[in-house]
Amino acid sequence: MEPALVRTSEGNCRMTVDFPLLVSSLRTTTPLVQCITNHVVSNFTANMLLAAGATPAMMDFPGEAKHFATEADAVLINAGTPSLEQFEGMREAAAGASESGTPWVIDPVGIGGLPRRSRVLLELLELHPTAIRGNASEIIAYAGLGTGGRGTDSTNSPAEALEAAHALVQKTGGVVAISGATDLIVSPDRVTELESGDAMLQTVIGTGCSLGALTAAYLGTGAAAHDAVVAAHAHVGAAAQRASTAGAPGSFAVQLVDEMFLIDGSAIHTLVSVKDVH
Amino acid sequence: MEPALVRTSEGNCRMTVDFPLLVSSLRTTTPLVQCITNHVVSNFTANMLLAAGATPAMMDFPGEAKHFATEADAVLINAGTPSLEQFEGMREAAAGASESGTPWVIDPVGIGGLPRRSRVLLELLELHPTAIRGNASEIIAYAGLGTGGRGTDSTNSPAEALEAAHALVQKTGGVVAISGATDLIVSPDRVTELESGDAMLQTVIGTGCSLGALTAAYLGTGAAAHDAVVAAHAHVGAAAQRASTAGAPGSFAVQLVDEMFLIDGSAIHTLVSVKDVH
Amino acid sequence: MEPALVRTSEGNCRMTVDFPLLVSSLRTTTPLVQCITNHVVSNFTANMLLAAGATPAMMDFPGEAKHFATEADAVLINAGTPSLEQFEGMREAAAGASESGTPWVIDPVGIGGLPRRSRVLLELLELHPTAIRGNASEIIAYAGLGTGGRGTDSTNSPAEALEAAHALVQKTGGVVAISGATDLIVSPDRVTELESGDAMLQTVIGTGCSLGALTAAYLGTGAAAHDAVVAAHAHVGAAAQRASTAGAPGSFAVQLVDEMFLIDGSAIHTLVSVKDVH
Repeated sequence: MEPALVRTSEGNCRMTVDFPLLVSSLRTTTPLVQCITNHVVSNFTANMLLAAGATPAMMDFPGEAKHFATEADAVLINAGTPSLEQFEGMREAAAGASESGTPWVIDPVGIGGLPRRSRVLLELLELHPTAIRGNASEIIAYAGLGTGGRGTDSTNSPAEALEAAHALVQKTGGVVAISGATDLIVSPDRVTELESGDAMLQTVIGTGCSLGALTAAYLGTGAAAHDAVVAAHAHVGAAAQRASTAGAPGSFAVQLVDEMFLIDGSAIHTLVSVKDVH
Repeated sequence: MEPALVRTSEGNCRMTVDFPLLVSSLRTTTPLVQCITNHVVSNFTANMLLAAGATPAMMDFPGEAKHFATEADAVLINAGTPSLEQFEGMREAAAGASESGTPWVIDPVGIGGLPRRSRVLLELLELHPTAIRGNASEIIAYAGLGTGGRGTDSTNSPAEALEAAHALVQKTGGVVAISGATDLIVSPDRVTELESGDAMLQTVIGTGCSLGALTAAYLGTGAAAHDAVVAAHAHVGAAAQRASTAGAPGSFAVQLVDEMFLIDGSAIHTLVSVKDVH
Repeated sequence: MEPALVRTSEGNCRMTVDFPLLVSSLRTTTPLVQCITNHVVSNFTANMLLAAGATPAMMDFPGEAKHFATEADAVLINAGTPSLEQFEGMREAAAGASESGTPWVIDPVGIGGLPRRSRVLLELLELHPTAIRGNASEIIAYAGLGTGGRGTDSTNSPAEALEAAHALVQKTGGVVAISGATDLIVSPDRVTELESGDAMLQTVIGTGCSLGALTAAYLGTGAAAHDAVVAAHAHVGAAAQRASTAGAPGSFAVQLVDEMFLIDGSAIHTLVSVKDVH
């Protein structure tokens, strides 16, 4: 299947993301994704990565995390349930990834309202993460333009976080993804709007955190960073659309993992709507 | 549906718990429940809360846990797999909840046989938790009248823990729930007996811990404490009855989460048997 | 059902493992299994143990772990996501088990490439674990003959780890299980080859870790150690064969837990192929 052409806001034609190529690349390279993540979602995240085609390694222990990051294909840092030891693991992994050129992703869960993790997350920002993924309130708080959402829920729409995303892109040189009903993926020279997913995603813990992990996995394939981030969101979003027949959250979570495994790039291409708006 | 009238042991009529009102209130207020819980059940607990209609936030980090407790609608403290850092988080959250009037629940997993957590749990008791939820052996041990069960399983029946529950109620001024085949919910002036649930609940880890979290969620709606505790047990129990068609624990766990989401207050009212025995 | 007779490589006849007896013994004794394991798989491990018929207790807290190990029926030590506190819990539990004669199992996740946990795991080896369970690369690394696999995946076949297993058996006097497509269970005077399982096991996180926990559970029944280790692998393997109708990893994981509960010893006997090759 040819990637479709879309008309951008400037009137130019550019190719959208080539989902068949990216999904197939994930499954043939099976990138090793080092995850430093919270205990609430570590099992679900690992299963989502395995189902999609990646190889998870939940590895956050200081004294081991840095070296591992130099050998992994990608690193995820998620601040959901930190400990002082895990903070050290985060610092090590970010340093290891940064020094060795391993792509790495920050998922700034709880940034803003929670002071201790916010300090660490701001410190990690200085090491130029390859991508940042959060909901709108988290992206706004990470850019210093707000104080976070309600618990881990966003109280803003993705569009309201666009200025904050641009600020973070400028600071890091990386890609920023604002996840929501419509995702916005923002790079220095490109903004992509992705419509996919299903409201049932809000009823299962860890679907957002898994998006961060999938983002790392796609970056670990060696794909262009912006495309990789879009592909991660589209893979989870399209799988959710197919799983939405479940009708209740227990079954939906099971089917979501199933669909992460069963879906291919052509089906993703058909199910999601993606356009470059800048 | 009108709440039914029941005859108490004293021969008086009093209204039972108004499940339709309470369940609907949970789903409209979507209380933010701060959970300090163990890594074995954190994912399942969060999914049970989401399915029921609440908003979980697994937040146990010292330096953040106290302030968060002042803003949350309810707090759960579960001692399943503690660490020294999490003990600090527990102390902070209990203090924050206590000072700000946020209702909070202790689930004293492992009390009795395990000395370090027992000391912390006894210390927290001094801060007057709004509710305590445990199995019979845990309630007996928490009142200083026994040494706990076998691992995390009870070796006593709820009826055997009634004296201990009364002692804890007298000490804290709160509600004490003894979970079991028949639950006993004990307040200074009221004892409610609840028959609900299914034996399959014993084959899935975290069903008891989720009861503690649901107890916090219902307290977070602002309902009267005794009614809230009964409603939490009835919601989980009735959902388990509907899920029991599954026949094996993997499917049962999935259907249980589904039913937590699908069931309404009228169905709960029909499925459970509740009476005030004092 | 009579246990079948098999011809060994020496041409002698010996009885294979009596699965009906062992499975039934697990379900009547419901051994209390103390698990010190990683947060990625703790929920799944507990559910696999419960479904099979054992009683899990995730208990890794220093100051409590040693005494608990003296009272538990078996102990599992899995090094998946350690912390300094959990290392202490591991040392305590190993000491408690060792002193009191409680059978205990080491699952050396990440041995080799990860220096800090490797040191602790080598230290624990001196206390003579009743059994060691790992994939081929882990067994090779634990014997000092290699540096581990890729993340937590093996890059060797079980046959390639046989020499390493013999070395570990000689050092500890216990049983060593090399898990893989074909499992090899190695004792001082016996090597058993077990064919069971399904490729879908690789798509769900924690299936290997659960094998370690089941190994502890079967040892906790008081069965002969070699037979217990074979039975654990056969129980999980046969359940996986029945669950393989699922076709995708989310459903497969649910059905696997179901089948751990539903399957009996006769069905296991029929589904797996077991022979003593030495």
